[in-house]
Amino acid sequence: MGILIQNAKIMGGAGSFKAADVAVSDDGIIEKVSSSIRPSSSHERVDASGHVLLPGLVNAHTHAAMSLLRGVGDDLQLFEWLRTCMWPREAKMDGRSILLGTRLALCEMIRSGTTCFNDMYFNMDLVAQATEEAGLRATLGYSMIDRAKSGEGVAFDFEGKGRKELAIAETFAKKIQKKKNPLITSSIAPHAPHTCSKELLEASAKLAGKLGCVLHVHAAETRKELAEVLALTKKGSAARRPIDYLDSCGCLTSRTVLAHGVYASKSEVKLVSSRSSSVAHCPVSNLKLAGGGAAPVPEFLAAGANLSLGTDGAASNNSLDLFQSMKVGAIEQKNFRFDASAVKAEDYLRMATEGGAKALGIRAGKIEKGYLADLVLLDARSPNLVPFSSNAGWLVYSAGPQNVTDVMVQGKWLMRGRKLLTLDEEKIMAEAQKRAEKLG
Amino acid sequence: MGILIQNAKIMGGAGSFKAADVAVSDDGIIEKVSSSIRPSSSHERVDASGHVLLPGLVNAHTHAAMSLLRGVGDDLQLFEWLRTCMWPREAKMDGRSILLGTRLALCEMIRSGTTCFNDMYFNMDLVAQATEEAGLRATLGYSMIDRAKSGEGVAFDFEGKGRKELAIAETFAKKIQKKKNPLITSSIAPHAPHTCSKELLEASAKLAGKLGCVLHVHAAETRKELAEVLALTKKGSAARRPIDYLDSCGCLTSRTVLAHGVYASKSEVKLVSSRSSSVAHCPVSNLKLAGGGAAPVPEFLAAGANLSLGTDGAASNNSLDLFQSMKVGAIEQKNFRFDASAVKAEDYLRMATEGGAKALGIRAGKIEKGYLADLVLLDARSPNLVPFSSNAGWLVYSAGPQNVTDVMVQGKWLMRGRKLLTLDEEKIMAEAQKRAEKLG
Repeated sequence: MGILIQNAKIMGGAGSFKAADVAVSDDGIIEKVSSSIRPSSSHERVDASGHVLLPGLVNAHTHAAMSLLRGVGDDLQLFEWLRTCMWPREAKMDGRSILLGTRLALCEMIRSGTTCFNDMYFNMDLVAQATEEAGLRATLGYSMIDRAKSGEGVAFDFEGKGRKELAIAETFAKKIQKKKNPLITSSIAPHAPHTCSKELLEASAKLAGKLGCVLHVHAAETRKELAEVLALTKKGSAARRPIDYLDSCGCLTSRTVLAHGVYASKSEVKLVSSRSSSVAHCPVSNLKLAGGGAAPVPEFLAAGANLSLGTDGAASNNSLDLFQSMKVGAIEQKNFRFDASAVKAEDYLRMATEGGAKALGIRAGKIEKGYLADLVLLDARSPNLVPFSSNAGWLVYSAGPQNVTDVMVQGKWLMRGRKLLTLDEEKIMAEAQKRAEKLG
Repeated sequence: MGILIQNAKIMGGAGSFKAADVAVSDDGIIEKVSSSIRPSSSHERVDASGHVLLPGLVNAHTHAAMSLLRGVGDDLQLFEWLRTCMWPREAKMDGRSILLGTRLALCEMIRSGTTCFNDMYFNMDLVAQATEEAGLRATLGYSMIDRAKSGEGVAFDFEGKGRKELAIAETFAKKIQKKKNPLITSSIAPHAPHTCSKELLEASAKLAGKLGCVLHVHAAETRKELAEVLALTKKGSAARRPIDYLDSCGCLTSRTVLAHGVYASKSEVKLVSSRSSSVAHCPVSNLKLAGGGAAPVPEFLAAGANLSLGTDGAASNNSLDLFQSMKVGAIEQKNFRFDASAVKAEDYLRMATEGGAKALGIRAGKIEKGYLADLVLLDARSPNLVPFSSNAGWLVYSAGPQNVTDVMVQGKWLMRGRKLLTLDEEKIMAEAQKRAEKLG
């Protein structure tokens, strides 16, 4: 039994909207988009009058389980925050914490119109379990680090630590592939160019190639990382910047998602584009952690690089709301360039939909025949959305989670009339609150 | 019959929360705040379990009627936007447009937890009418401009135009004062230092002093304004920057609200503080219009100046959501200073509550005995707000309009369980949509 969504305004190219009906097949694919579709007797009919139908938003970089750490250590400097707040708590995060943190994140994602996310963290079997239960689409990777903790300066331990990390990552990725759940794919996720040895980065690139999966890595997020990578790479050769260095390790392919990319140089922007890699731009997290500056978004756009949009984890954002990320990203770029036309609303809408889908290699992000039916309904009859205007700005600058009413992933409803269908929200919130209090 | 709000977590100092009951008197004043208050038979009892009780947010700078122009000309440069989009439409805005635009804004404000706003525009009788009907608190002023339109460079026409503007402003202000509605007060609102003649600015200052009301003026919003004021004032004397110039016209008193203040110099920051004037910081509008740079918020805080928070109009924002303004303002400051501790969540929470109330001279913005019962309930049992933590960051970085359930102004409910009680929202949205389409 397919679904027929009738009378919605649907998002077309460049964020313009048109009235249309959308038919979704039994197996969750968009079958037909037309100004009027005659219902068949087997159709579940949905009257979406007064609503706007969007492709589900794609969160291209997050750490779902960190929702349990939301609000811990706000307003601290990045490294003080990591050292005094994040690391001690992460060390205490057992499986139950990961499960609850992820479930909490899934509730928030659905409520804010996100249908797919790209995650790297640890204990990923449990992240996968929670995501399968909830019915969202995700690309999941075990985050590998082999930087040695002790001693001065930057040192790595590939043979001792790196190999173990790789083994965990490979086992997880293969397990996910073996399951053949159409909603869950795996990634290989070396943490960052300054927290992984060259050997680990090279081995990650090879492994991702062998498994044919996404390589997900933090890159060019902070000035500290930039300085460390320059220092690391200057021995015996010209110093390399983070993205350049990752490329020299074989990490830049068309399946690569570089999280952040704030400190990409002009030549690195070209490199990302020439490798057909993707960037997951995370403006809210970057601003809140005071990374300084602004990602070279106009340059990435001009170079034709694929940009996607991420919230990062709720510990640094402190929200998983991609509507907010679209608006904050766009207006921050304008101000930074002293140019209101430096980026446009449709650029950000594209990042959060098509760009994210392309980064993860899924046929989503558009409402067209043959695309996955990952869809979101917004109630346009809300005072913050009036007057309606048929352009991306209406959505990017005015809409928010309060307007999201219904969410579908691959033809299956996860939320109807603001009620979550696959998650026991009350229970999850109560349990997550208790667990968070235990972490201190 | 008073109201007793029971079992809420209430916001105390510096954004910490404590469990308490709050009793509100018949005339809308907070009578008692205590860990447990015994209800009297005449109390309307409200069980606020699971909710957080906040002082209503104060929007210290907006143009409510401009909600009708939301989304018009996004992504254009400021002056192109004004010239090609705003001015032609504003010329067509009749009384009905003002009424509908204001009503639309009032719906959005209530839904996002705003109980009081500071507005300057035209046709203010109708803004006052709509606000009275809705039951919000407001300070309203007629926006005066006597800059001559024709010719090269900056020229003014005080005798022809300025005097007429002053007369309109004075008539409106006196009418409001005569009505003695406890919720509505008036301001004298010269538009800006580069759009008003020196004579008009001086006369405005005198008039505000005579009437004992707020003086509301745009100041130091853009580089263009800064350049124009420097050019205007260099004849015969040292060039003055906008706030310095306003002070020389007598415009800086303890009743003054300076909207924006982005380009305040260090000495102007001190001047604002020494005159006990207030700044209405409008970060979202500043970013979206690509003003460049960032307001010197840490300097204003260090100088002890009173900061309040505004959204500006929905035409430039494109939202009236003060939760968003708190978060965007705070994270943008952090990033701009490359310092996550440059501003703190409680600074922004204070701006949106106490700071706004102080700027407008009302006894609100705190939940304490003797304060006005302008109050907002948020449902803390929402996944984006879990885990709950007792600090301002929880609210500033995570909360949004989706969490606002109930709103009260001076003891009178304007929204209960997300339902607006004083405004016919459906009708307003339908009429506003039609009217906006007529404006083109």
